[in-house]
Amino acid sequence: MIHGNGPVLLTPGPLTTSAATREAMLYDWGSWDEAFNRMTKSICRDLLAIVSGHDDFVCVPMQGSGTFAVEAALGSLVPHDAVVLVPNNGAYCARMLKILERLGIAAVELKFHDDEPASVARIQAMFERDPRITHVAQVHLETSAGLLNPLDEIAALCAQHGKRLIVDAMSSFGALPIDVSKGGIDALISASGKCLEGVPGMGFVIVRRSLLEASAGIARSLALDIHDQYAYMLKTTQWRFTPPTHVVAALRAALDQFFAEGGQPERGTRYRSNCAALIDGMTALGFEPYLDADVQAPVIVTFHAPRDTSYDFKRFYEAVRDAGYVLYPGKLTDVETFRVGCIGAIDADDIRGAVAAIGRALQTLNVSVAT
Amino acid sequence: MIHGNGPVLLTPGPLTTSAATREAMLYDWGSWDEAFNRMTKSICRDLLAIVSGHDDFVCVPMQGSGTFAVEAALGSLVPHDAVVLVPNNGAYCARMLKILERLGIAAVELKFHDDEPASVARIQAMFERDPRITHVAQVHLETSAGLLNPLDEIAALCAQHGKRLIVDAMSSFGALPIDVSKGGIDALISASGKCLEGVPGMGFVIVRRSLLEASAGIARSLALDIHDQYAYMLKTTQWRFTPPTHVVAALRAALDQFFAEGGQPERGTRYRSNCAALIDGMTALGFEPYLDADVQAPVIVTFHAPRDTSYDFKRFYEAVRDAGYVLYPGKLTDVETFRVGCIGAIDADDIRGAVAAIGRALQTLNVSVAT
Ligand SMILES: Cc1ncc(COP(=O)(O)O)c(C=O)c1O
Ligand SMILES: Cc1ncc(COP(=O)(O)O)c(C=O)c1O
Repeated sequence: MIHGNGPVLLTPGPLTTSAATREAMLYDWGSWDEAFNRMTKSICRDLLAIVSGHDDFVCVPMQGSGTFAVEAALGSLVPHDAVVLVPNNGAYCARMLKILERLGIAAVELKFHDDEPASVARIQAMFERDPRITHVAQVHLETSAGLLNPLDEIAALCAQHGKRLIVDAMSSFGALPIDVSKGGIDALISASGKCLEGVPGMGFVIVRRSLLEASAGIARSLALDIHDQYAYMLKTTQWRFTPPTHVVAALRAALDQFFAEGGQPERGTRYRSNCAALIDGMTALGFEPYLDADVQAPVIVTFHAPRDTSYDFKRFYEAVRDAGYVLYPGKLTDVETFRVGCIGAIDADDIRGAVAAIGRALQTLNVSVAT
Repeated sequence: MIHGNGPVLLTPGPLTTSAATREAMLYDWGSWDEAFNRMTKSICRDLLAIVSGHDDFVCVPMQGSGTFAVEAALGSLVPHDAVVLVPNNGAYCARMLKILERLGIAAVELKFHDDEPASVARIQAMFERDPRITHVAQVHLETSAGLLNPLDEIAALCAQHGKRLIVDAMSSFGALPIDVSKGGIDALISASGKCLEGVPGMGFVIVRRSLLEASAGIARSLALDIHDQYAYMLKTTQWRFTPPTHVVAALRAALDQFFAEGGQPERGTRYRSNCAALIDGMTALGFEPYLDADVQAPVIVTFHAPRDTSYDFKRFYEAVRDAGYVLYPGKLTDVETFRVGCIGAIDADDIRGAVAAIGRALQTLNVSVAT
């Protein structure tokens, strides 16, 4: 692809967007205007369709970054006497625990290793051991390592045991198949600037209509109240507080391109091809992916850092950036790693360009790759 | 001014921005990148300078709309045992009361009429009557009517009585003089998409450094924790969660234009000239401003709606919009009004164009203006 837009961002959001998406921000929309409110409505309808959310689900947009939407969902949907189980295999699971703690909601942590998917059997065992558990808060794709959790199985288990399931699908929505019509998922959270390839600045919560309607008065916050946002939008067609109009317009343009590409299946195919090109190229350079292939999602790949003592992430990052590609630091605490994203308006040629730049940077910096 | 950008938005944000501001969004910034983090830092430095915030103040940006920053300030800075006085003369004061209620913070309302500025004498009397009061939460410019509250006097009073003062300066920051170095103001909140003429999507809190540093652990929310945002930014130079990168870049461009124009004094002069052209033109058409001239801020003007039974705001709005100008509905509960903004990348010629369009719309709709 042709960018003419500074370095290619191989990061899990903000990411490289298309020119059409950025150009949608060249127009000032009035937030009271019908045309803008029709745009919001069409976005919500399309986001629902991506995960087969029919009439029994609604989509509520929320200003702010993805975390704001996660906190809004937890704070607006989980009642005061609930107990939330959080299977934890990375930083975004830990963040949900922190949010629950801040909100004064009882939580139970079920710890997994950073490279180990959440286990349905262990979740079931927790349900049996601790019957106070009412909810599960699950990260679909743990972006800290790039790890895929078995969402379908967890959803089926929650449905079977009558537990409410709230899913952080921040970095999987649009790229991996998710089908809320199969049951088990009560709320699903993502944001504009991830696999939908919009720009960052808004999130959204897709939530079972009956649950949302029964959640009036729960929210601990005014700004992050998704029930209020929904009720106001239903009544007025408008956002409750000033919307990030340009971000919304960019998401509309990004969704048009998403559907033109063929929707989630084709977006997933492109990302899988990016991911394969990345792992092939990096393996050829001597790098080793942190995760096993069967739990690696095609969104972001964690590589072990070179053991060579002359390796320094910052210098490596700068050399690769100066060649036109922005990498991402690792987010694991016990091993030194770095990450390379496969998402955004990029294709396998961009990835091959990045791998070549990484190879040249290692030579220039005189770093040997043995990991 | 020349727009080529759809209708002129005569609304208090989102507003009409310059082409340079919008074009700054044509580039994808990485949020981990040094150049982006330098940009954030330069924005915070410039925002502080606008209100004479020296070393004893810091500026903390916050994702989301302006309300998110207001809630973040109240929720992160007001301790659990505080009592907050809210002088209330409009919808944004009422919103602060609602936020305090959601957060479980004790509040005392001091009611004024929608066209009546907060009275320093009545605030002082409240301090004497209710010594539990520890804080005042004050809206500087009540955008619901366009009313200016006497911030300097209230700040002096708070300093004298040892009360903490938190100011919502959403629609005044950059347009009206504010000087935190004179004492009395502890925190000041505004956003990107108002008189700074950026696009909406982020707010900021300018806060006394010693107060912020003493506020660790107060926040009721993770996303809206300004102490955490500040501490993380200090340590890493980065935003805590994904920043709205394009909105940030647009604000940088808007600030460059703000300083090139001559800063707050010149911005204020342009808005005063817009406001005078508006009131002159509308008065000539027969409209009557809702506020007395001495309490009218040059940001947004509320006009009484025509009494003519054939007047309907929606039809009037649409006729004027089709002529290229977007008006704003009234926000008062007891009288029928509409509002016209004077802010954004517009000048008095644009305002005269809007007045002419309003005159033609009245003729077309056959509405007589007697109010
Ligand atoms: C799984 C997951 N959850 C939450 C977030 C937080 O999103 P944000 O940084 O937009 O707040 C991210 C960000 O990458 C993520 O990958
Ligand atoms: C004085 C005042 N406070 C708060 C707000 C809320 O800002 P936002 O709509 O961005 O949440 C506004 C918006 O116009 C305002 O004028």
